Amino acid sequence: MFQVNKNYLKLPGSYLFSTIAKKVNAYTEANTDRTIIRLGIGDVTQPIAPAIIKAMHEAVDEMGNAATFHGYAPDLGYAFLREEIAKQDYQARGCEISADEIFVSDGAKCDCGNIQEIFAADSKIAVCDPVYPVYVDSNVMAGRTGEYDEESGTWSNVIYMPCTAENQFVPELPKETPDLIYLCIPNNPTGTTLTREQLKIWVDYANRVGAVILYDAAYEAYITEENVPHSIYEIEGARTCAIEFRSYSKNAGFTGVRLGFTVVPKDLKCGDVTVHSLWARRHGTKFNGAPYVTQKAAMAVYSQEGKAEIKEQVAYYMRNAKAIYDGLKEAGYQVYGAVNSPYAWLKVPEGMTSWDFFDYLLEEANVVGTPGSGFGPSGEGYFRLTGFGTYENTVMAVERMKALKK
Amino acid sequence: MFQVNKNYLKLPGSYLFSTIAKKVNAYTEANTDRTIIRLGIGDVTQPIAPAIIKAMHEAVDEMGNAATFHGYAPDLGYAFLREEIAKQDYQARGCEISADEIFVSDGAKCDCGNIQEIFAADSKIAVCDPVYPVYVDSNVMAGRTGEYDEESGTWSNVIYMPCTAENQFVPELPKETPDLIYLCIPNNPTGTTLTREQLKIWVDYANRVGAVILYDAAYEAYITEENVPHSIYEIEGARTCAIEFRSYSKNAGFTGVRLGFTVVPKDLKCGDVTVHSLWARRHGTKFNGAPYVTQKAAMAVYSQEGKAEIKEQVAYYMRNAKAIYDGLKEAGYQVYGAVNSPYAWLKVPEGMTSWDFFDYLLEEANVVGTPGSGFGPSGEGYFRLTGFGTYENTVMAVERMKALKK
Repeated sequence: MFQVNKNYLKLPGSYLFSTIAKKVNAYTEANTDRTIIRLGIGDVTQPIAPAIIKAMHEAVDEMGNAATFHGYAPDLGYAFLREEIAKQDYQARGCEISADEIFVSDGAKCDCGNIQEIFAADSKIAVCDPVYPVYVDSNVMAGRTGEYDEESGTWSNVIYMPCTAENQFVPELPKETPDLIYLCIPNNPTGTTLTREQLKIWVDYANRVGAVILYDAAYEAYITEENVPHSIYEIEGARTCAIEFRSYSKNAGFTGVRLGFTVVPKDLKCGDVTVHSLWARRHGTKFNGAPYVTQKAAMAVYSQEGKAEIKEQVAYYMRNAKAIYDGLKEAGYQVYGAVNSPYAWLKVPEGMTSWDFFDYLLEEANVVGTPGSGFGPSGEGYFRLTGFGTYENTVMAVERMKALKK
Repeated sequence: MFQVNKNYLKLPGSYLFSTIAKKVNAYTEANTDRTIIRLGIGDVTQPIAPAIIKAMHEAVDEMGNAATFHGYAPDLGYAFLREEIAKQDYQARGCEISADEIFVSDGAKCDCGNIQEIFAADSKIAVCDPVYPVYVDSNVMAGRTGEYDEESGTWSNVIYMPCTAENQFVPELPKETPDLIYLCIPNNPTGTTLTREQLKIWVDYANRVGAVILYDAAYEAYITEENVPHSIYEIEGARTCAIEFRSYSKNAGFTGVRLGFTVVPKDLKCGDVTVHSLWARRHGTKFNGAPYVTQKAAMAVYSQEGKAEIKEQVAYYMRNAKAIYDGLKEAGYQVYGAVNSPYAWLKVPEGMTSWDFFDYLLEEANVVGTPGSGFGPSGEGYFRLTGFGTYENTVMAVERMKALKK
């Protein structure tokens, strides 16, 4: 009789955002007269920029014409896009990354979830706490995380690096040595980030202990401060210890278009084996290339016109984040983030858990956010609001939350 | 020091189609005056049908407009598409499959590669031999296949079911009991298929021994004979033992558009655990939904106009397959398949291996095919040609191959 992967059965509850969606749906059905404002999931609301739409139409036309039709794309991405990424996202910032170190995929979530499988089954992982659930859950599925303790909300074989107001949300180097270190910078969910000097400490540490940093830079477009690196490859030594994930979801609104990429430098090695060769093999075996139309859409992201348009979108969302930050601060909330990221991270009122506050906010203000505890035990007592709504809704949500404080 | 997944290092050589591409590129560079005809990889050549192109343009416009913009798609696919699939691909054929048993993805290759991870690490797999390399390679990566024997080209812990001219390419029930049985029907690479009665034997067997059939029906649109089922769910009992993979790549030319789906009936269980719940969890954790534009494109596949147009495309490719079959038969080759599938499968001339014949055909006729041994040891002595080229090229390739026989 066939057996299932029993590690899946260890996962507590459902995926965070599925749980939220169910709660919100239930409330909406029972209260059809209310207008819910959703600042929970990190989904964008602005339409795709005109230059990108134009590129997509042109690519669709190519697909409808025998002379310009494109079948299977190269597994690792079209050369035109990989070269543009290498040039504009890396070489322009002084990072020594070449086109053939870039792997184009259908999104950073897939890559972040799949990357663990090219490492040994007994690899020890370290994660910030709170953290994007995909990092931990994908390792649970692979059997790396030990047992779950309901009480503490932690896995026995995961190294947690707490990020709270007490340490300004900056993780400390772990006491126990990990094999894989997940870092999401600018951080989801806390909205905080690392300076060049702070990130250098991590690169040096990883090289010293022989760990790999899995660096999720999905929010790099939201960085506004000078001394915050956009890529880990701005730090000397990163080529021998870091893999970087990038997404077009947040800088160009591709959450429903689907495209991202992963950078695996050829200097990242275990003995004679390059990690690059393993990720290439995984792509070749379990992936069939990203759509031609989508890769042409991404090319428009790098055009002069496209760059100007998406800069405006990022500014729009950052104005929202600032409105949340300033408004809630004024109302007496403790708020963090929202300077180099579209997320505001707030302390929930004394005596409430994150889920209590979720329910309270949904019922009393009809505003949906994300409970911090959904991102890990140290997220308890915190709450995430995103700047990805419309400006009008964001301002209205802030007003409603201010009213609760009166 | 971090360690890699050592199972990856057991994989011999590179992915089959990458090796072919390299050989062809080397030949082309050294012989720039020759016109190569590629009937190797199963990639389509006809442009996307007008009804689908129209739907894609409309969807792109929606993405460019704030009022109709779509962000993250539901993980499992838009309800509009899942319902259409359930109705047209299944219920219309008398299969009891509901919309919520359908999981939309970015392609059948990904699903075929990923499905193994929801089963136990010590699951025993059975595959037809020859076989689509992804089934075996994805299990090698997961450490299920034992050791590779260079001499025989087999893995010590895989059950091989030979399919050769001797048994009319119909696999026999394995002597040793497997947990997972991969069946690709109509078959890639042999081009052969199973009748209703032949498939019923497999369904009954799987239910009796408690195995899961992983049924790859990517080529179902090419079935022309009456008694050949299009879905395994046409067979009584399949709901408790089978998962079915479908692709839009071959019926609608989506190799560069990327969309497919997997059907997991809720009656497929291991004890109290539904396999459906595990696959849903995998989708939710490691996938972020298929693009809106692509899902709208697939909707057009089911429209009256779309259906008529893709029917013509399938007929076009089948005319190619028939031209290959008839032409090579006439020239004295032993040829199989090409009746319910776009693939012709031929015996290579006495005294040659499959790779010998590959080189011979590339050099003497400038025609690219796929060596049968690339699909497994029992593929040795065979060769695959696809009907996915243009009609003109196909006819020319056949003429060149005929000339070799003179």
